[in-house]
Amino acid sequence: MSGRGRFISLEGGEGVGKSTQARALAAALRARGHEVIETREPGGSPGAEAIRALLLAGEADRWGARAEALLFAAARADHVERTIRPALDRGAWVVCDRFLDSSIAYQGGADGLGAEAIRALHAIGSEGLLPDRTLLLTLPDAIAVARETARDAGRPDRFGARDPAYHARVTAGFRALAEAEPDRWRIVDAEGEADEVTARLLTALDDLA
Amino acid sequence: MSGRGRFISLEGGEGVGKSTQARALAAALRARGHEVIETREPGGSPGAEAIRALLLAGEADRWGARAEALLFAAARADHVERTIRPALDRGAWVVCDRFLDSSIAYQGGADGLGAEAIRALHAIGSEGLLPDRTLLLTLPDAIAVARETARDAGRPDRFGARDPAYHARVTAGFRALAEAEPDRWRIVDAEGEADEVTARLLTALDDLA
Repeated sequence: MSGRGRFISLEGGEGVGKSTQARALAAALRARGHEVIETREPGGSPGAEAIRALLLAGEADRWGARAEALLFAAARADHVERTIRPALDRGAWVVCDRFLDSSIAYQGGADGLGAEAIRALHAIGSEGLLPDRTLLLTLPDAIAVARETARDAGRPDRFGARDPAYHARVTAGFRALAEAEPDRWRIVDAEGEADEVTARLLTALDDLA
Repeated sequence: MSGRGRFISLEGGEGVGKSTQARALAAALRARGHEVIETREPGGSPGAEAIRALLLAGEADRWGARAEALLFAAARADHVERTIRPALDRGAWVVCDRFLDSSIAYQGGADGLGAEAIRALHAIGSEGLLPDRTLLLTLPDAIAVARETARDAGRPDRFGARDPAYHARVTAGFRALAEAEPDRWRIVDAEGEADEVTARLLTALDDLA
């Protein structure tokens, strides 16, 4: 691959399998001969991981919605400057588990700060960098909540333990974002065997290769 | 004092005596019967102090200008929400060593991100809260640099060790801000005995009492 790389983000509510699929997708793209960086938000660079630790630790009310949105934007700015842009510039593909759209769906939507505020922070922090393709993984809410509940029992943090109505708002927020920008987004059914889901994701990247 | 309190910020380059004067000013206002909160930026609340630690530690290039500005804005959002607004709402006076204008002069001006970006972050993070009065302490640059050099020898951090030209740009930035908003700002000569300077600061608050 020569020239600028490709930037792929995976989005969706908790429990839809984003992390597993990000790993599988990165492996499949490597098998096609690309250099691939697997990364995630919040985090993905040393500074952003330090901010991630501030975001995840402590009580649920440790941060107000405004400070939290600014911390996510700060982590993203560092991640973009130190990890994502350098990788794209040398021609690598970047597969990122959550990016800007998670901030819009969570801090901007379900938490009430507003999508325009989150986009304004992204314009200042990261010069508005957007993925070339954003893959929205979807599952029926009942399946996602059951998976998440099983996982959170072993790994509680500030972002676990929200109620099903909150999940439904987040899911609706992601769908609205996908429908508003159909060129960038693809909605992918995450039900079924993992390798079937990975194959669907690869198909959703066909026009980028 | 009944009703809303008063919010006073002290600004100026390094070495002009802001911390000493903030303490003296708070004591003088207490002697007049006010409840007074002394605070500082970055910091002033538990969350903001944790962000301060991220900002001050590490190498000079640990954070890019964009991530740094977002971290300052996040710290300020927490400080405003958890410390400053509650104090003002119960009628206290707040004396704050540095506030928004330091971000404009440093991250917005001397570091090149632009004042409008810093103000946009403040609008989102802190709903644009401004001090009732901002006191700009001024000294001839040569005196300030000599004081700062003596102090930094014992307390180096990411924001020490800048050259005199940088200081001159910061000082010029503060003066321009003061001249653009004369109702909010007073420029106060910080030369002379400490108690003389404190008396000048109190005079600059006469119309707020």
